[in-house]
Amino acid sequence: MRPKRDSVSSMEEIKRMSIKEHRLHSGVTETIGKVPLRSLRDLAVFYTPGVAYASLAIKKDREMSYALTNRANRIAIVSNGSRILGLGNIGPEAGYPVMEGKALLFKKFGDVDAVPITISAETTDEIVDFVKKIQPAFGGINIEDIASPTCFEVVDKLNDELDIPVFHDDRQGTAIVALAGLKNALKLVGKKISEAKIAVNGVGAAGIGIAQLLITAGAKDLVMIDRAGIVYDGRERNMNPTKESLAKHTNKKRLMGGLRDAVKGADVLIGASERGAFRSRFIKLMADKPIVFALANPEPEMSYYAAKSAGAKIVATGMSGVPNQINNLLAFPAVFRGALDIGARKINMQMQIAAADALAKSVPQRMLSDKYIIPDFADEDMTKITANVAAAVARSAIETGVARKKMSETEIRRNIEAKLKRYQRIEDFVSRLG
Amino acid sequence: MRPKRDSVSSMEEIKRMSIKEHRLHSGVTETIGKVPLRSLRDLAVFYTPGVAYASLAIKKDREMSYALTNRANRIAIVSNGSRILGLGNIGPEAGYPVMEGKALLFKKFGDVDAVPITISAETTDEIVDFVKKIQPAFGGINIEDIASPTCFEVVDKLNDELDIPVFHDDRQGTAIVALAGLKNALKLVGKKISEAKIAVNGVGAAGIGIAQLLITAGAKDLVMIDRAGIVYDGRERNMNPTKESLAKHTNKKRLMGGLRDAVKGADVLIGASERGAFRSRFIKLMADKPIVFALANPEPEMSYYAAKSAGAKIVATGMSGVPNQINNLLAFPAVFRGALDIGARKINMQMQIAAADALAKSVPQRMLSDKYIIPDFADEDMTKITANVAAAVARSAIETGVARKKMSETEIRRNIEAKLKRYQRIEDFVSRLG
Repeated sequence: MRPKRDSVSSMEEIKRMSIKEHRLHSGVTETIGKVPLRSLRDLAVFYTPGVAYASLAIKKDREMSYALTNRANRIAIVSNGSRILGLGNIGPEAGYPVMEGKALLFKKFGDVDAVPITISAETTDEIVDFVKKIQPAFGGINIEDIASPTCFEVVDKLNDELDIPVFHDDRQGTAIVALAGLKNALKLVGKKISEAKIAVNGVGAAGIGIAQLLITAGAKDLVMIDRAGIVYDGRERNMNPTKESLAKHTNKKRLMGGLRDAVKGADVLIGASERGAFRSRFIKLMADKPIVFALANPEPEMSYYAAKSAGAKIVATGMSGVPNQINNLLAFPAVFRGALDIGARKINMQMQIAAADALAKSVPQRMLSDKYIIPDFADEDMTKITANVAAAVARSAIETGVARKKMSETEIRRNIEAKLKRYQRIEDFVSRLG
Repeated sequence: MRPKRDSVSSMEEIKRMSIKEHRLHSGVTETIGKVPLRSLRDLAVFYTPGVAYASLAIKKDREMSYALTNRANRIAIVSNGSRILGLGNIGPEAGYPVMEGKALLFKKFGDVDAVPITISAETTDEIVDFVKKIQPAFGGINIEDIASPTCFEVVDKLNDELDIPVFHDDRQGTAIVALAGLKNALKLVGKKISEAKIAVNGVGAAGIGIAQLLITAGAKDLVMIDRAGIVYDGRERNMNPTKESLAKHTNKKRLMGGLRDAVKGADVLIGASERGAFRSRFIKLMADKPIVFALANPEPEMSYYAAKSAGAKIVATGMSGVPNQINNLLAFPAVFRGALDIGARKINMQMQIAAADALAKSVPQRMLSDKYIIPDFADEDMTKITANVAAAVARSAIETGVARKKMSETEIRRNIEAKLKRYQRIEDFVSRLG
């Protein structure tokens, strides 16, 4: 017996259950063998002397590590715990449960073997150097919950220097899902992304990721706002190199002022800031049929219903239980699934756009409405969505020349369906064991 | 249908099978969840918002990471691939299959979640710094297949600086099993370790580990030999800091010369060197009822039967298929099992001696013979042996004050039996899935 969707427990009960369950199972993940060791022959094949031949084959051609080890399905989730969701800088030990939980999601929704590694390291150079050291053992890297601007510097450097895909879920995961939702929302109100006036409130990882992806997807009139007001080229207060670079590619009219000035006449307002940051009076200043995405976590800038009452035509938040949840779970397992299946060397912007397109199209045209602009994780066939997104990512990797191998879309889909079904059976079996 | 022990295949077939099987399964390990994700409530408990409470509990008391995450059962297998068994310096990508195979053994025989990490790093400082960075995410570290003397420097520094157990399997694993076998062998020939004249040929990781452990166990007359001959205090050729330190604690008579001089009158000859290093004429120079351990891998200094023919009373090798296999598989999963169960901060020498004692006693007194001085991995109830050794290691950790918690021997044994039985069921299930 499992609780239904609408019986999700109170925070007090979730807290009690979380401590109890984490303690009961001593964490949530484990390492197991894909093969049995039943005989001396198994030992000879999988350990010495047989394993030496796998090693020699890789020594001869390093790319063979993708065929003969679990590397092709294995990523590291790297964090130093310096900006854990809603908790701030709590360090690597305390950050670990979040990364272990994320590894569980990667396996369940993408059959990706994710290895949480929370490290004692502060500077960009230390973290970059660390990840370069572990590159030979992994097929990809997911950077998670590192304070900005360190996280941007780390990811940019790694993207330049590594030959395996690097993903920054805080920035890119949310951005992919937000772009998917925005595409459908704009379609409903009959506007084009290239003509829409967009304000993005919050210039942390998520806000920057959203702005970068929207610009790549064709947005031309985009203004960002942080605590110091509208970001413009030449602003001196509260800047960093990432913001300076963004200032050159946004706010072409060189608007100044606050959030109030930015939302005036805007078609789209996206928040990646903090609870309570949006007011009804701001929504009323927006253009006709305004779109409001209030994506702050764990609580939105404005509730779904408050935004609707204030006149927003289409509203999305990070919350479950109301329509249009922008949940990065719709993106990160599928994006890595596609990238790993094709042996991608990067997760480039085109692949992220392809993921957003596929996710947007996962909502059938006939069902599209202001209450349904993005697949709802709780209601959907997640296998189908993962297959859609992963196949699009893989195809884009091939088209943009970053794929190590080729695979047809049919193969990719069949492969994913088989993998997720297999893991479902393992999950069922292991949970019965207790 | 599985091949029986005596039908172990030819090297050609093992090679073919190893490449085929590693490719078929894309490596041998994967990460899975210990808990199911079936409902929004599961997600809320194991990921956000629930996981934040586990993080906060650890932030308040870092030791809680052992209760609320998989850290208490998780070790890293760290190597740079610079001295892979029999293959030399093949690098981190090519070294990876060996570490992944080892992770499989750790799980199967100790239910330890081992995470293989092969790194691009050469110097002692780089490797030490790397391991210190990952400490928050692991309950222990197994250093593996790093060239000497770097490996010794790395392990010594880590032992000083880390608060989690560090094990050097090449050195300490083989040494524990060799000491166990030697104890039983000496008992059979009626000699005492404190009075025996012992020669150890080979001053790499295994030879040094054996010498260090034998001295701690009471050996007083021990001489080491390398390519440059007998090691003595003040020798200048072919030395390093570890050898210099050992030279001060061995060879008290300051013998010089070669292997021939060292074996003259010796009660025990142990090889950790290379194939063919022992000759019949050397064995004939030894004392009455000589004990010969030819432990070179993958092929011994002298075969079991050749040593017997030359007059050795008791012979052990690293080979399966002949009596008395000195296999570190008898030690490393159990040693970590015991260390992790008790939350050990170190794996000190006393714990290693305790492991060797327990292993020696796993051969029932009435069955002890020159053909059975050590449990044979292929014939035994490995669960019982692991429980014996792990319980001894845990007890010793408590006695020497390095344990984080207390557990009775009965609890430890019951715990291990349940864990290994549970994994056996997972192995069966997963191997049926294919």
